[in-house]
Amino acid sequence: MSTIMINATLVTVNEQDETLLQGALGFEQGRITYVGPTPTDLSDYDEVIDGKGQIVMPGLVNTHGHAAMSLLRGYADDLPLQEWLETKMWPLEGQYTAEHVKWGTYLSLIEMLRTGTTSFVDMYDHMDQVAEAVAESGLRASLCRGVIGFPPEAQQAKLAEARSFAQNWHRQAEGRITTMMAPHSPYTCTPDYIRQIVAAAQELDLPMHIHMSETAREVEQNVKDYGLRPPAHLAELGVFDRPTLVAHAVHLNDEEIDLLASHNVHVSHNPISNLKLASGVARLPEMLEKGITVSLGTDSSASNNNLNLFEEIKMSALLHKGVEQNPVVVPAQQALRLATRDGAKAMFIGEQTGSLEVGKKADFIVIRADRAHFHPFHDPVSHLVYATSGYDVQDVWVDGKQLVSNGSLLTIDEERVISEANRMFEQLQR
Amino acid sequence: MSTIMINATLVTVNEQDETLLQGALGFEQGRITYVGPTPTDLSDYDEVIDGKGQIVMPGLVNTHGHAAMSLLRGYADDLPLQEWLETKMWPLEGQYTAEHVKWGTYLSLIEMLRTGTTSFVDMYDHMDQVAEAVAESGLRASLCRGVIGFPPEAQQAKLAEARSFAQNWHRQAEGRITTMMAPHSPYTCTPDYIRQIVAAAQELDLPMHIHMSETAREVEQNVKDYGLRPPAHLAELGVFDRPTLVAHAVHLNDEEIDLLASHNVHVSHNPISNLKLASGVARLPEMLEKGITVSLGTDSSASNNNLNLFEEIKMSALLHKGVEQNPVVVPAQQALRLATRDGAKAMFIGEQTGSLEVGKKADFIVIRADRAHFHPFHDPVSHLVYATSGYDVQDVWVDGKQLVSNGSLLTIDEERVISEANRMFEQLQR
Ligand SMILES: [Zn+2]
Ligand SMILES: [Zn+2]
Repeated sequence: MSTIMINATLVTVNEQDETLLQGALGFEQGRITYVGPTPTDLSDYDEVIDGKGQIVMPGLVNTHGHAAMSLLRGYADDLPLQEWLETKMWPLEGQYTAEHVKWGTYLSLIEMLRTGTTSFVDMYDHMDQVAEAVAESGLRASLCRGVIGFPPEAQQAKLAEARSFAQNWHRQAEGRITTMMAPHSPYTCTPDYIRQIVAAAQELDLPMHIHMSETAREVEQNVKDYGLRPPAHLAELGVFDRPTLVAHAVHLNDEEIDLLASHNVHVSHNPISNLKLASGVARLPEMLEKGITVSLGTDSSASNNNLNLFEEIKMSALLHKGVEQNPVVVPAQQALRLATRDGAKAMFIGEQTGSLEVGKKADFIVIRADRAHFHPFHDPVSHLVYATSGYDVQDVWVDGKQLVSNGSLLTIDEERVISEANRMFEQLQR
Repeated sequence: MSTIMINATLVTVNEQDETLLQGALGFEQGRITYVGPTPTDLSDYDEVIDGKGQIVMPGLVNTHGHAAMSLLRGYADDLPLQEWLETKMWPLEGQYTAEHVKWGTYLSLIEMLRTGTTSFVDMYDHMDQVAEAVAESGLRASLCRGVIGFPPEAQQAKLAEARSFAQNWHRQAEGRITTMMAPHSPYTCTPDYIRQIVAAAQELDLPMHIHMSETAREVEQNVKDYGLRPPAHLAELGVFDRPTLVAHAVHLNDEEIDLLASHNVHVSHNPISNLKLASGVARLPEMLEKGITVSLGTDSSASNNNLNLFEEIKMSALLHKGVEQNPVVVPAQQALRLATRDGAKAMFIGEQTGSLEVGKKADFIVIRADRAHFHPFHDPVSHLVYATSGYDVQDVWVDGKQLVSNGSLLTIDEERVISEANRMFEQLQR
């Protein structure tokens, strides 16, 4: 079946960042077949949808998170990082069963879909649950079993699990799921263990995903333990010989920005989580200037506390202007690109999605622009970055299949998920 | 007629910051008559509203803005401040007629109401239009004719206009409108002119509102021109002998924070506008520590680009943690207080509104908490600060009168306003 949406404002985020008024988007069998002015002859299409008063844009791409942690949303805020982790997060996460992961993940999928995210990266445990939820609900994701090297005697079992998860699910769910190998971080995995994970990634031909240089303390500790700051340490362990997506990269010096650029390491910038946990402000303008592929991530709801990526888009456009006292850095169109085109590239699916272009997957969102904050309707890109709320998203399509219609979820039972999520949270000993 | 809303989660923001589960809010003739557990006997009330699954909290208070500038939303972003002002804002504002102010203001009122703001401060020109729109639409506001001392020959006419506006509208619209005297800033008004405005405020017994220390450049210029930084300069001119609300206060040294505290000067913190215009980051934690009454403002949609104060709430809770690398500053409850209780106090109506307490005006908002991002429903204050979108606001009441019902405006014709706002924008020569 072929479908065309007509009369919409199309924000394509293609190579030329074209925006079309009175545009049309045609798609068939999950792929975009037409992007251009609304044609006068529509007889080629089985279905015609009127997009008058609406903005159509690529679905958002959230390149770092831990969906199952939404069960801990609001459980602990405004605490020093170590206290937050050691007395709040870890004791509860330690009690997680597969069922906790399942309902926490579904809670996140609802929120991501409702606010326009169509592709995401997830690193956690009990990943079969996450993959099944993704397969069921229709999103696109790159998933990885995040491995921590403690206790040492569990290392081999965890690595085996990460390998078999990655092998089993790569290119599954009609190709919507891809996988990566993910040592959690240089401070939770020994050098030797990281080397083994890199070898596995090499063998399976998969990319790597890892937390890096999130806090100043972690950078110092790395120097104490291994004589190197995290980027040099990971480069030496061969991580950057694989395609790699690092999360955070807050504390980088100039040489490290050059190092990441020269190894084509992709970065997931998580500005809200970095502020909330008081980690600091990443050097986004400098990374962009050096040509690094930077994308946006929410991190988990426990340190955000939502998964509404439109907030990261606005934050990335605001924060660096203010902190560097330079109003021209990260202009609106660039902020939007981080969350779409560059996000897809960062998670290694840039050939498939991230922009409205013929041949790419039909992953797009429809935004109702009839509310006051979209007017005067002078510059839709500005409004998408600086004025919108994620809850202006009306419809969401992935792979040419509609997942959200007029704000309602078509593939997930929201009421049941909310009730189960509350039940699972109440079960945890606090 | 007496009304009671029952079975709701009540976030009172009273002196003790009490939150009540299964709470009830009673009101009659515009005033709150009951705050407490849901009573078993409801026979005293003419009308009973079930608030199950909803959060009821005080309406938000936006203490700095220029509503009519929403006509320029998205017209110019990502530019150096002077270029933005001189080539973009001023040429268009120079063409404004009363009708531009009217429709720009209505556009702002829609957005404020839809996202839960019930009281706001506005400084602009053609203020009769603004006051009439406030009177019609039912919000609460403190309004002031912002005066700029150029050209010098216009000074007396502008001051006379500001005086008569302030006199005519103070305590009008069933008491919902109050007024202030507002020299625009120390860099647009000469010392002598500021003294005259202070004298008028003294005579009319009105507070003062003024922009102060928004940019580093402006502080330097003040030193060059008058030998003093702005706070000392305004103190010397007698401004702080009146009750005063200053907007921005970004560039303050320790002595200036002490000076504002000792004169009980109130501050409107505008974190998003300050970031977008690259002005910098105000020292919110230090101001709070010294006991200054700080509140939140959006500034205009031209530098934000919306009036959704929930964004300022989250930003104020995030930004200072990250920039000062201290996760315990500005905890959630404090951020919420800035936007409610302290906001009302900052705009000199703290006796009337800003919290859910018996005797105060029935200015409150109802938030639908049935969406995924409010769950697990463990800590509603955390969710209101870190997880909500302004578009979770369902109902808005001011003075015991409902202005928004299930997201629809009861006192403003949204479609007409949007159409007129676009028409007025198109009229401007660009
Ligand atoms: Zn993470
Ligand atoms: Zn202002």
